[in-house]
Amino acid sequence: MTRPVLAVLGLGQIGGSVTASVKARDLPWRVRAWDRRGAGLAYAEAHGLVDEVAGSVAEAVDGAALILLAAPVRGIRDLLGDIAPVVEPGQIVTDTGSTKASIVEAARERLPAGVAFVGAHPVAGTERSGVEAAAPRLFEGRPCVLTPEADTPDAAVARVATFWQDLGARVVQLDPREHDRVFALVSHLPHVAAYSLVATALRGLPSQEAALAGPSFRDLTRVTESSPALWRDVCLENRDALLAALDALVEQLRAVRGALVRGDGEALEVFFHEARLGRRRLWIE
Amino acid sequence: MTRPVLAVLGLGQIGGSVTASVKARDLPWRVRAWDRRGAGLAYAEAHGLVDEVAGSVAEAVDGAALILLAAPVRGIRDLLGDIAPVVEPGQIVTDTGSTKASIVEAARERLPAGVAFVGAHPVAGTERSGVEAAAPRLFEGRPCVLTPEADTPDAAVARVATFWQDLGARVVQLDPREHDRVFALVSHLPHVAAYSLVATALRGLPSQEAALAGPSFRDLTRVTESSPALWRDVCLENRDALLAALDALVEQLRAVRGALVRGDGEALEVFFHEARLGRRRLWIE
Repeated sequence: MTRPVLAVLGLGQIGGSVTASVKARDLPWRVRAWDRRGAGLAYAEAHGLVDEVAGSVAEAVDGAALILLAAPVRGIRDLLGDIAPVVEPGQIVTDTGSTKASIVEAARERLPAGVAFVGAHPVAGTERSGVEAAAPRLFEGRPCVLTPEADTPDAAVARVATFWQDLGARVVQLDPREHDRVFALVSHLPHVAAYSLVATALRGLPSQEAALAGPSFRDLTRVTESSPALWRDVCLENRDALLAALDALVEQLRAVRGALVRGDGEALEVFFHEARLGRRRLWIE
Repeated sequence: MTRPVLAVLGLGQIGGSVTASVKARDLPWRVRAWDRRGAGLAYAEAHGLVDEVAGSVAEAVDGAALILLAAPVRGIRDLLGDIAPVVEPGQIVTDTGSTKASIVEAARERLPAGVAFVGAHPVAGTERSGVEAAAPRLFEGRPCVLTPEADTPDAAVARVATFWQDLGARVVQLDPREHDRVFALVSHLPHVAAYSLVATALRGLPSQEAALAGPSFRDLTRVTESSPALWRDVCLENRDALLAALDALVEQLRAVRGALVRGDGEALEVFFHEARLGRRRLWIE
């Protein structure tokens, strides 16, 4: 029996982890990969992460049952334009972008009729990048948010949902705009805040004094190891939701400032206490 | 030969880690402990972390060569008042508080002439609290900031410096006010920001959506597990430096906001890139 082709376009940490997971779990796909960067493809071939390497986007998508766009968010929009002339009715396209509304909109504009697009965001990854940082268990137990729209065919949604479940992810569905609002608050804003905390400390201190920082600063700012270009794109793609989140954070910091100016220890303690309890309720750690 | 007495007043994670380290390294001290909380003392005795337990502050400091105040910052100020009537010339008092100017000032006001006070801040500890979280290697390789003033006797400074070096810490000296400015930027502000990020996300989202947060949010906000009462006190004790740090952060967030509104991807990327490089230069990880 011929295995259906999974075409992975973009072989960074996420794309590479998808192919590594498919291999590690021996899922019935023939994995075909394409990347702008030849070095990543060579690494993937050498490590048995792919079955075949495509020389072009057209070659990559040819006859594929599922086409996974695994570039950074702006790269995904470009790829949608690149594959548009060569995809065919019946093919399913999905992605791994950490913003969704602008990608779903671009897919609607660019892909031909009969080609289903199911937006997806596997909530996984580390501050490392590149296929060398791929990990075959990256998605296990992690959420993967699908963002179908009212007219997305159920069969395509089901196929993409099964795909991520097969990689060990926990699939949930959200409206694309609600997805972007959620991740502005729990991911994009915290990253911007971490970069801003580092910049604020470094502007105020000679580096030998900043280096006195304890493990809490180090942990809290570790996400600044993420790719600057990736975060630039995420911020621009999710601009409106991020602006709202930034304003909400500044308002919150102002409230703390007010309590501090008043010397209101009780308000500060209640605030810290409620944040701690609220966070604890989110996960069973 | 009789070992000199080290009196540890306050037996939480830091005080307990000091006594545990003295024992683990077999340093020539007789360790005497006192705490308001009997349970902590019983735990320390049962685990061999102390040689003797004192029933009162007066009993604790009696004849001690070195008196270590290891309570939260406001507790240290209270303890300075408690020990003032019973300390004697020649004794050296030090502390572990994470703010310094107000403690140094309180020591100057309250301790009698002839009793040297050497402010100290071992930059160590986790989000856990209590003597049960004590660790004998907590200070190894970590900075310990001493904040002597112009009139602090050199011999007392040297004794306290040796004490922390013997526990494996790397001793540095700063002016108490400069210490507070540094730690407002690298510790107190980041903690306040982490609590504020959690609060902002929870105000904006139902908890099942906030629970979609990835590992970066979890790591970034782990410090909110710290004691709310401890952070209330740190904020109040270091109010002026923290207010300045908060204002600097809000100014930085506004600059990011401006770049976002302008759609200035280059400014965002340069900002992220410089923060990442700056942080990398702080430590060899």
